Amino acid sequence: MSYAANPDVVSVVEPPIAEAKGWVAGRTWPAHRPLLDLCQAVPSYPPAEALREHLAERVKLFETAQYTAITGIAPLRTALAGHMAGVYGGTIGAENVLVTAGCNQAYSLALMALARRGDEVILPLPYYFNHQMWLDALGVTAVHLPFRPDRGGVPDPADAARLIGPNTKALVLVTPNNPTGAVIPPAVLAQFRDLCAEYSIALVLDETYKDFLDPGEPRHDLFRDPAWGDTVIQLYSFSKAFSLTGYRVGSIVAGAKFVEQVAKLMDTISICTSRIAQDGALYALQHLLPWADGKRAMMAGRREALLEVFASGNLGFELVSTGAYFAYLRHPFVGETAAAVAKRLAQEHGVLALPGTVFGPGQDDYLRLAFANLEAERMGEVGDRLRGAV
Amino acid sequence: MSYAANPDVVSVVEPPIAEAKGWVAGRTWPAHRPLLDLCQAVPSYPPAEALREHLAERVKLFETAQYTAITGIAPLRTALAGHMAGVYGGTIGAENVLVTAGCNQAYSLALMALARRGDEVILPLPYYFNHQMWLDALGVTAVHLPFRPDRGGVPDPADAARLIGPNTKALVLVTPNNPTGAVIPPAVLAQFRDLCAEYSIALVLDETYKDFLDPGEPRHDLFRDPAWGDTVIQLYSFSKAFSLTGYRVGSIVAGAKFVEQVAKLMDTISICTSRIAQDGALYALQHLLPWADGKRAMMAGRREALLEVFASGNLGFELVSTGAYFAYLRHPFVGETAAAVAKRLAQEHGVLALPGTVFGPGQDDYLRLAFANLEAERMGEVGDRLRGAV
Repeated sequence: MSYAANPDVVSVVEPPIAEAKGWVAGRTWPAHRPLLDLCQAVPSYPPAEALREHLAERVKLFETAQYTAITGIAPLRTALAGHMAGVYGGTIGAENVLVTAGCNQAYSLALMALARRGDEVILPLPYYFNHQMWLDALGVTAVHLPFRPDRGGVPDPADAARLIGPNTKALVLVTPNNPTGAVIPPAVLAQFRDLCAEYSIALVLDETYKDFLDPGEPRHDLFRDPAWGDTVIQLYSFSKAFSLTGYRVGSIVAGAKFVEQVAKLMDTISICTSRIAQDGALYALQHLLPWADGKRAMMAGRREALLEVFASGNLGFELVSTGAYFAYLRHPFVGETAAAVAKRLAQEHGVLALPGTVFGPGQDDYLRLAFANLEAERMGEVGDRLRGAV
Repeated sequence: MSYAANPDVVSVVEPPIAEAKGWVAGRTWPAHRPLLDLCQAVPSYPPAEALREHLAERVKLFETAQYTAITGIAPLRTALAGHMAGVYGGTIGAENVLVTAGCNQAYSLALMALARRGDEVILPLPYYFNHQMWLDALGVTAVHLPFRPDRGGVPDPADAARLIGPNTKALVLVTPNNPTGAVIPPAVLAQFRDLCAEYSIALVLDETYKDFLDPGEPRHDLFRDPAWGDTVIQLYSFSKAFSLTGYRVGSIVAGAKFVEQVAKLMDTISICTSRIAQDGALYALQHLLPWADGKRAMMAGRREALLEVFASGNLGFELVSTGAYFAYLRHPFVGETAAAVAKRLAQEHGVLALPGTVFGPGQDDYLRLAFANLEAERMGEVGDRLRGAV
């Protein structure tokens, strides 16, 4: 092309999932030894049949083919506010909710409404790659919070305190984490919230994987603070628990004044979230929470199976942390890049994982497995193949 | 909130459609004299029944609930490339196509991939408000090409030549135009293309309303230039012709290298366009072009009816330009703001139009009517109510 592209966008890395899939594109695998695709978090089960039947009725209506309000359909905003208040306690109203085309869009709009070229945002290592890519595209500097494998991957508020400067606009946390699976305990989240409040910066909390948390684990109490809207911006996705990835529906929960700013971006970039996706999300909240809890239990079983695989023998690979959907492994090939290891694992051993390097600097010793894509009874195959690679 | 929002986003105006709808929110209208909602372009007809039946089958499949490739499903990219090449001539391949969540997203991603804070983009007056809003949000300076009512609203390449500077990254044209309805003749488009090529800037062509062009009018020949990808970026929407506004599906057609840059943004902001929306778009291209042409003929009938209304008597309002979906009117209330006129028209006369001011500076004498929302046989009511307001 003869025109120039925005250098900030040119500087953004290639989409990592697409690149990893490229390693095995066009390959065929023997039936007894299929590819184990653990590179992208894609539920292995379809949406509930009742939901699919509901959508089959909805698509017949004219209304489904029409724009909604920018912030989303009113019943979904109300249901989501009620759902979050039910899970976390506190007061959350429909005016705090904006429906988005997935959690990536929630993040993109929220961060754009917070920071512009030259500003800084604190991102813990390892980061979810799209978070870094969006900041790069905006020309916003991502300031990296150190990876703390010694804390099970839980970032340290004391580390963060040292990184906040005059240009810092927000701090981003992902819990349960992508890529490490680590869950940030409520007390640590409260410390991060206090830190952000002290410096008047936003705490952006990506809870895409919240539905996979053990029901016995305590929920954070951030929303119980009546002033939560002054600091906390929560992001969520219907993609994973309800297996709606292809519909693109998620949400932002934030102070009403911030929602108004985000709505301007939403109007401009998308007008509204796809109506049928919103209908699916509403149905999910109204009817499928027990169904999703069954999936949560199934995912927990997959995690148990993964832990057994790692407990059962020396795989060469070390399980650094795991939770919800992901496992973060340290590979044993000293001096070899994570990308080379991941490519070899894919092409020679049929395990498609992402190299740690896509999650930030200093991650060359690691791989991410979206283990929850795989049925528990097949988790042993992962162990066998990793063992075979060493 | 205690944290600060991005000042560039704060500077973005409130979404105009939502604001206009607020003027009549909660009002009830007598059955014999309902509100004529001509503020947002929303087809008055549902999608084809066959399309709705097709989607009802599609939503039952697991595949429909899963992510697609970032750039869209392959058959849709191929079909759209073939469609555009069929309409305009020239060579367009699947690698030139990226499927987006509507034309607003197509514009947002394309412009972000072209320009960053401090850069300039040339936008003709009156502009489509979301175009200006996105540039404001990015911190990109919109340089306004003068409105030329003397040319029927067709912008003048000679005016544009004077506005191109060292920081200019792109020139945006909307044809058929929103808000004026004006159609830029092929020869003028070719002049704009030559100008952009000369200065190595991108020509962004928003053809959301292309399907409403009279079949007898010649199509532009931009794609017949083998080097079109060096300059031209075409944006399109399935929303209007196929009545799929609520599904959010559109496209970018551009040079393959630029598509790769946009794909990074697409991955980051949305991962992919909603699968069911893509299925709908594919079905539309495969089966519904004759159906859409029927709608085009119906819209042309509505335009005829509108022209008759304005030809039939002194309304006080002057029809400055019209085409495709919109009419741009000059109101007779000298010294009164367009916003005051529009609000009064809505609240006292039940005609919801947008004030010219949302389309840029110097537009205080104008109103935009999305007349094609209204059946031809009811167009007389518009005339009666405008007459009643004077």
